[in-house]
Amino acid sequence: MSDLSNLAPANIRAIAPYQGGKPISELAREMGLNEADIVKLASNENPLGMSPKAQMALEEALAEISRYPDGNSFTLRDAVSKKYAVQAAQIVFGNGSNDILELAARAFLTAGDEVIYSQHAFAVYPLVTQAAGATGVVVPAIEFGHDLPGFLQAITPKTKLIFVANPNNPTGTLIAKPVLSHFLQQVPRHIVVVLDEAYDEYLSEADKSEAISWLAEFENLIISRTFSKAYGLAGLRVGFGLMHAALADLMNRVRQPFNVNSLAQVAATVSLQDEDFVARSYAANQAGMAQITQGLTRLGLSFISSFGNFVSFKVTNAGAVNQALLKQGVIVRPVANYEMPDYLRVSIGLFSENARFLEVLEKILGS
Amino acid sequence: MSDLSNLAPANIRAIAPYQGGKPISELAREMGLNEADIVKLASNENPLGMSPKAQMALEEALAEISRYPDGNSFTLRDAVSKKYAVQAAQIVFGNGSNDILELAARAFLTAGDEVIYSQHAFAVYPLVTQAAGATGVVVPAIEFGHDLPGFLQAITPKTKLIFVANPNNPTGTLIAKPVLSHFLQQVPRHIVVVLDEAYDEYLSEADKSEAISWLAEFENLIISRTFSKAYGLAGLRVGFGLMHAALADLMNRVRQPFNVNSLAQVAATVSLQDEDFVARSYAANQAGMAQITQGLTRLGLSFISSFGNFVSFKVTNAGAVNQALLKQGVIVRPVANYEMPDYLRVSIGLFSENARFLEVLEKILGS
Repeated sequence: MSDLSNLAPANIRAIAPYQGGKPISELAREMGLNEADIVKLASNENPLGMSPKAQMALEEALAEISRYPDGNSFTLRDAVSKKYAVQAAQIVFGNGSNDILELAARAFLTAGDEVIYSQHAFAVYPLVTQAAGATGVVVPAIEFGHDLPGFLQAITPKTKLIFVANPNNPTGTLIAKPVLSHFLQQVPRHIVVVLDEAYDEYLSEADKSEAISWLAEFENLIISRTFSKAYGLAGLRVGFGLMHAALADLMNRVRQPFNVNSLAQVAATVSLQDEDFVARSYAANQAGMAQITQGLTRLGLSFISSFGNFVSFKVTNAGAVNQALLKQGVIVRPVANYEMPDYLRVSIGLFSENARFLEVLEKILGS
Repeated sequence: MSDLSNLAPANIRAIAPYQGGKPISELAREMGLNEADIVKLASNENPLGMSPKAQMALEEALAEISRYPDGNSFTLRDAVSKKYAVQAAQIVFGNGSNDILELAARAFLTAGDEVIYSQHAFAVYPLVTQAAGATGVVVPAIEFGHDLPGFLQAITPKTKLIFVANPNNPTGTLIAKPVLSHFLQQVPRHIVVVLDEAYDEYLSEADKSEAISWLAEFENLIISRTFSKAYGLAGLRVGFGLMHAALADLMNRVRQPFNVNSLAQVAATVSLQDEDFVARSYAANQAGMAQITQGLTRLGLSFISSFGNFVSFKVTNAGAVNQALLKQGVIVRPVANYEMPDYLRVSIGLFSENARFLEVLEKILGS
């Protein structure tokens, strides 16, 4: 076995794969529970499901599934181009926005390059950095948020890429727009900045990102978006990056020709236009966030104020509490691998799911 | 623009993206044709669509699409494990088998390594090689087939990976089992061999691969399979690799955690068990292959005998003939980028599609 693992270079052998939220089916098998009795609040999914219009479109599209997808995502590209007022050539589609993050690493990094990201930032940044043979440079967080002046100080001649998550997962922290804009002005233009906005649809109108309007000024900026969160299409895998056309051209060279499946393209196109569904998802998240944070407060637990569809709360013996929640059929996310061993992250669910989580948590803490 | 493209290393800038078959919708837009009037025989898709059982399962699975996929593909893994009598840990799932080819390149290659593949072999091999910063070594074909003794002679101390396509696309050539087995015995075990069997389901019982039974003997062997061809799931994107568990572990380190979407997992699981559909697909392909090769012979055209669901035929002015076919709503595949400028590749379609192709081709050649 050791001989065989030596077939891969050292940077690959050293990778520890990503730990996702536990699927409902897996917990049901492990604990002998009924799937219907399990509440999963572990993966920042949309508890409202997906747009009903998208579902109808998917059922029609099933008839053509033996055909390869359109490798250029023509129809979806046209929809994104119109919605965000960008050129078609400025858009790169991914198999989820995870694919966008990886394509950026693969297009721009070579062995020995440095990549800057924040402590407590999304786990995929170190993964794609390491797979590319580059070196991750972690900037300590300030109150769980990105220390952008610290990012600037961490820049060296080897720095090639910077990941900024806004809002950040799993902390939910948000960088104010003027701070972010000022940061981008200071970053040398030969360093690519990937701004991960997976949770933008959960921000208020006042807080929503304006980064797309900055693309003309910052030719080194890549904005990453996803359909897995507010659009409710996590299972289908589709996200996109917006950037200067020259950068998009480079990313497309390492993109698998059929990376986005046909149903994802159909559902994303229809979902983009179903603004009513996104508005309902936003409202449900606002209400659920209030319900959960009030509940946590009532239980005497502190939490990190979150701009996403999740909240990380502090609890003694987080690992044991997580196990106790699992036994009761409630899946949340331990975040010890984010250097937050005293925290658990709970996604905002439906009213009844949130209530069930709080009820079970109260029982566990009281026992 | 030139400054921006310099943000990527030279091996990335030099990549020419994959050219897929032209989608029906694209031709309809370009030529002002009705989609219903277009015959696409360009991408080796299954003209029978997908298993009706898979379609029913997909409709049910749509309800849970806001959930992330199971990153371990538990249910599908169990089905593949049982069908092919391999351990669960020997299987790696991909976003189509394209993903398997790319994961092999990313897990095992570093800059400067050499990768061996055949002239006229599948275009994705050079693409993933170049993206990894490795060097492709092309072994000239013999009568369009793989020259495996030539492969052995091409091995150098830098050789790290070998791609073998069996049957090969776009030539349709097949390597006899004893020849392939003998070759694997000669390859040093520190070189990974990826055996791409995307078209195996279209082989007769006598010709079908036995490579899975060789895995115990060849720890450096990766067998790549797809659901995009005989299983008719090209639009959903799912394929898999079978290999020693130690190699699978390395491939999984560079795999995106949610690379296979939920619907692909559901449809593939059900499709694997629908042997009747695969048998019908095989029979339809046999009949259609006879129809098309007889038609080509009648038109005085030579072709490369094919073991796949496609056949490449020789025609004067192939580029112009392709354009004329497109104008009549018939999409086939030019293969000039495979160093076969005098050939066109036609996929085997339904009886009526094959007849339409032959009729339009006859008209073009006679005019």
